Amino acid sequence: MNTSESIRARRSIRKYQEGYVIPKEHVEMILEAAMMAPSACNRRPWDFVVVENREILAQIMEIHPHTQMLRTASLAIVVCGRPDLQDGICEGFWPQDCGAAIQNLLLQAQELGYGTCWCGCYPVMKRAEALQKLLDVSGIPLATVAVGKAAEAPEAKGHYDASRVKWLR
Amino acid sequence: MNTSESIRARRSIRKYQEGYVIPKEHVEMILEAAMMAPSACNRRPWDFVVVENREILAQIMEIHPHTQMLRTASLAIVVCGRPDLQDGICEGFWPQDCGAAIQNLLLQAQELGYGTCWCGCYPVMKRAEALQKLLDVSGIPLATVAVGKAAEAPEAKGHYDASRVKWLR
Repeated sequence: MNTSESIRARRSIRKYQEGYVIPKEHVEMILEAAMMAPSACNRRPWDFVVVENREILAQIMEIHPHTQMLRTASLAIVVCGRPDLQDGICEGFWPQDCGAAIQNLLLQAQELGYGTCWCGCYPVMKRAEALQKLLDVSGIPLATVAVGKAAEAPEAKGHYDASRVKWLR
Repeated sequence: MNTSESIRARRSIRKYQEGYVIPKEHVEMILEAAMMAPSACNRRPWDFVVVENREILAQIMEIHPHTQMLRTASLAIVVCGRPDLQDGICEGFWPQDCGAAIQNLLLQAQELGYGTCWCGCYPVMKRAEALQKLLDVSGIPLATVAVGKAAEAPEAKGHYDASRVKWLR
């Protein structure tokens, strides 16, 4: 699939084929794609937690209410921001940098044949802090991304909207 | 180019072929790609200003010091966040949502044969407010993205870093 098709074919998937195991090399390729995103001053303000453990996935579902699709997903990738890596002129860019990394993650997963669902965490601090404790990480959990083999094919929600564009020629 | 290659081939381009004109249908395809990104509650908290006017581009370079590559770029796309579209449970997700939209924009531009450079604006409020005034928009300028025909071929800065990944099996 070329990039244009990929961008337009991506969907948020909430039903997956249960029990599907994603090979480690695919997970690494997905993480590599995320880490190829640009970031302010190239500080790469992100860490990743790959959760395949079903018990921990169940705990994430309790903490983070919009992640119920994790029941059938193969795994979750929790993307954590690292504001501590962005000081001086780079301060505060980490949420948008992580957003770019996540978009690469979604597109790469799709090209490998997987569905994904991006579940927002930060800036809901109660949710972020509970996940941080559960996963025992120092970064700030920004999003939980479900990954698995899709078992549904929803319609696209994105579209071009000319009213959102101003032209200065 | 397929998606995996595209993600890995993208670079921040700071020198462009002067005077190159990008057809309007390509700009619209790039904007459509941006608008295909997912967003919290599908609120699509983004607006876009396409700047081809050389005088306005020069003023952007004065306000936003790291945008000097606009001198040779064909145009700039200023991505503006719309926090007003995200209330309730969706509040505050707009910078990461815009980050995802920008990543799509960069990848789509690349597939069409253009180079890009993402220049961060928000959360540097002084910069964002000056751009907001210059462009006469209500959204918050989050980034200025230069787009043009590349006249340089820098090395990749992204790479897989295993130390940034924690596995919970």
